[in-house]
Order: sequence, then structure tokens, then C-alpha cells
Amino acid sequence: MGNFVDTCRECWFCLNGMEHYCPKIIVTYNGLDKAGEPTYGGYARSIVVDENYLVRIPDGLDLAAAVPLMCAGIAVYSPLRRFDVGPGTKIGILGVGGLDHLAVKFADALGAEVTALSQTTSKKEDALAFGADDFRTTTDPATFLERAGYFDIIRCAVSAALNFDQLLSLVRFDGTFVNLGAPDGPVSIGMFSLIRSRISFTSSSIGSIAETQEMLRCCVEHDIVSEIETLSAERINDALDTLRQVGGGNVRYRYVIDTSTI
Amino acid sequence: MGNFVDTCRECWFCLNGMEHYCPKIIVTYNGLDKAGEPTYGGYARSIVVDENYLVRIPDGLDLAAAVPLMCAGIAVYSPLRRFDVGPGTKIGILGVGGLDHLAVKFADALGAEVTALSQTTSKKEDALAFGADDFRTTTDPATFLERAGYFDIIRCAVSAALNFDQLLSLVRFDGTFVNLGAPDGPVSIGMFSLIRSRISFTSSSIGSIAETQEMLRCCVEHDIVSEIETLSAERINDALDTLRQVGGGNVRYRYVIDTSTI
Repeated sequence: MGNFVDTCRECWFCLNGMEHYCPKIIVTYNGLDKAGEPTYGGYARSIVVDENYLVRIPDGLDLAAAVPLMCAGIAVYSPLRRFDVGPGTKIGILGVGGLDHLAVKFADALGAEVTALSQTTSKKEDALAFGADDFRTTTDPATFLERAGYFDIIRCAVSAALNFDQLLSLVRFDGTFVNLGAPDGPVSIGMFSLIRSRISFTSSSIGSIAETQEMLRCCVEHDIVSEIETLSAERINDALDTLRQVGGGNVRYRYVIDTSTI
Repeated sequence: MGNFVDTCRECWFCLNGMEHYCPKIIVTYNGLDKAGEPTYGGYARSIVVDENYLVRIPDGLDLAAAVPLMCAGIAVYSPLRRFDVGPGTKIGILGVGGLDHLAVKFADALGAEVTALSQTTSKKEDALAFGADDFRTTTDPATFLERAGYFDIIRCAVSAALNFDQLLSLVRFDGTFVNLGAPDGPVSIGMFSLIRSRISFTSSSIGSIAETQEMLRCCVEHDIVSEIETLSAERINDALDTLRQVGGGNVRYRYVIDTSTI
């Protein structure tokens, strides 16, 4: 299952293959099911899900490494498809984290020219190994001179206050900035950053069941899974401490809990 | 002439009919011409302009009432065309001011279902006369209940801090919010307002010479000009005092200076 286990099945979203936007969505974790019981996500040993809300993990994908595909994976795959990222597309992926490393892999698989943008060079080799064609740091002023107006699309998933005006200067005329991050407070954008190049600033939420199944087919075709570290249940608290550190404690790149140890 | 009198003629924008985005654009007012002299816009009695940067005001348009078309008019016409506003489009026009009243006229002429949204009902009759099919106030909670997720596109030109999250709730899934306003400070948007309905938040700047000429043809066809009040030069200071009042002092809807009196 992915990160929702049911929806109302009657609204416009449910009837148009956009059930992940259903206002009555029941999320897999931190939600309430139809009986009013909380959902526990990856901490649950079992959960009841209607078959329409399940996907098939194709043969050939490592089950543990496929786990983050169901949330981080679909969250980045969906906007890439929405904006027709493919051969000829110049995409900038901001950050090299849990979502980002999958975005690099998918964008590369779809045939785009991929640039990984990060604050430091600490994950440069990783980003290039995941399929990035170029790597630039956002702390180097040369990045903003040499890549001004360069990218068709920039995809960002940083849940923190960012200098969006600086990042928007990297997007071409009529380009798109997809911000999947959801910081606690509002984001701030200077209108001239959008006016100057008619840029669209947008976002999205995960993907539908059908789109998730499509993503998994793409994963098998292109040998894509998440980079993971598998944890037994007794290490969960340590893992949470690590994740609370600045930048997610450099987890490379997703923790997966072995539920047989719960 | 419109609000630019020359551009570099060599850059990507100039060579692709987007000369109004040329980084070396020479604006008609508050700019510097190629000789380094300031440009005075509507306060100038004469100005030298290359023929390529002129448009023809078609016979049948009142010259004075056509003046605001060259800035306010094209600024609202261009995004309507960019987003294919036409029959079947539900558009919300926020405000009933100088730009807004032209947006209502154009959107109506293009065949859209037009809703004027305003803080008060003071301009309701005007908005309906300009072609709005519906009128709603943004101070009435019923507007946000009855029109939640309703509009394909909302067009806003308010240069002030607005509750964008509230306004974005009126836009449908995959809809567009075009904000032409350029307040001094940045705008604040809660990411969930975009995530929830995959809305694109964008902007634009005036229009090209070719697009301005196209707009003028549309004006003749649909009998569209700006509502104006024509002033002699001696009333300029009074007019500026009025414009400095909250809400632009209820000017209905654009002042035009009779340059023969300068």
C-alpha cells in the first residue's frame, strides 16, 4: 500500500483518477480510519486495505528498497510526468536527500538533462552516481551567473525557509518551479521573481494509485529503487534522533523499518 | 506607443516576439533612453520612438480612451490569451479598478464566464455593466463557501498584502492564479494552498508589440475602451493627491492627461 488506504470513492477527484486529492482521504499514518481508529503507517504490523488501494510490487524490485517509492518516489515521479520531463528537458533538482535522490534517478531515466543543486559538495559523487549530469552548489555565486534562466523546471522538496527569489533566477522564461516542500510557515516570494520570466510556482501531493503502479513499472524498466538503510524496531528511537538533526542527519537516503522485528 | 520605446533587438526575447522581457528594455516613463536621458511618459510632449515600437490605433477607437489600453489594457489582455480564456472558462477578476475593469471587458469579450470579486459592493453596477456575469464580495464568507474550488483562473492586480491562501481556495484543481500586482514586499503563500489543488501561481509583464496590436483589433471588434476622466495639465497635482488615497481614491477608472495643455 502507499500512503493512503481509502478515499470517499464518490467525489470528482475519486471519479477522475485523482483520488489522492479526495477531501476524505484516509492516510496510512497519523490518520483516522473509517472506524475512527488511528492509522500507524510503518509502525503497524498489519492494516486492512481495500484491494483498489493496493499496488503490485513487480517482480525484480527489492521489497525493502521499494518501500520509500510508495511515498517519496511517487511524490517526485508525479510532477515529473505532469510537466512532461523527458529528452530535451533541463531540470534542476534541489538537494540530494530522500526525495531528491529518487527525483534524480527518475529524471535521468526519463531522459532529461539533470543538474543536482546542493548547499555543499558532500553528496556530489552520490548525485552523479544516481544519474545527475551536472552538480552545482547553491553557495557558489558562479552557479547563479552561469545558470541564470537555464532550467525548464526546478524541483525542490526542502521544508525550510529558502531564498526562493535567488532560486527562481535559475528558471527560464515560462519555466516552472515545483516546490514540494511544506514548511510550517508560509513561503515568501518577491513578485518580480515571477513577473520577470513569467514563471509558474506550483506544487503537488503524492500521486494516484494508477500513477503509482505506472511508477513501479518505470522502476523495473530502469532498475530504480531507493537507497535505504534497514532498521530493526529497537533502533527506531536512535533513527528519529538522527532525523531530527539539521539536514536530516545525512541519512543515506531513507530508513526502512523491518516490521518483523516490531 | 506603449510603455516601452525600444529594446536591444538581439536577445532571445527580442528575436522571439517577447521583446517586452528584454533585459535592456527602455521604458516610456521613469527610464533612461539610449542617450542616457530620462523618459517622461505621459508628461512628455514629444518622444522619439522607432517605428517598430509603435502600434496603430485603429479607426473607431477614441484616442483618449485608448490611452490606458497601452499599459493597463495589454497587461490584462496578455495573461487572458496566455491561458486561453474563452467560452467555458470561469474566471474571477479581483477588484474593479483601472486594470480590473478592462480585464472584465476583455474576459467577457472572449466569451468567458466572468465573476467580479470586490471588497465592497460600491462598484457592483459598474462591474455588471462592464460585462461581469456575477459579482461577489470577498468580505462575505458565503463567497468562499459557494465558490470554493470554482474558478479555472483568478486574475489579481492588487499591489498590497492580500490573504492569498483565502483567495487560492476559490481556484479549482489544476487551476491558475495570475497575480499582476507588484507590492513592495514579498507575497506570502502557505504551501498547502497550492499543494491541495495543484494550483499554479504566476504573473506576467505587459505584452509584446504584436500582442498589443492584436489587443487593439479585439477592442475595435468588441467596442472596448477604458473608462476615463481626461485632465488638463493644471489638474495633475490634484489627481495625484486623489490617487494617493486608499484604493486609488475611487478613480473611475483611469486618468488621462491632455498633453496639449502641458
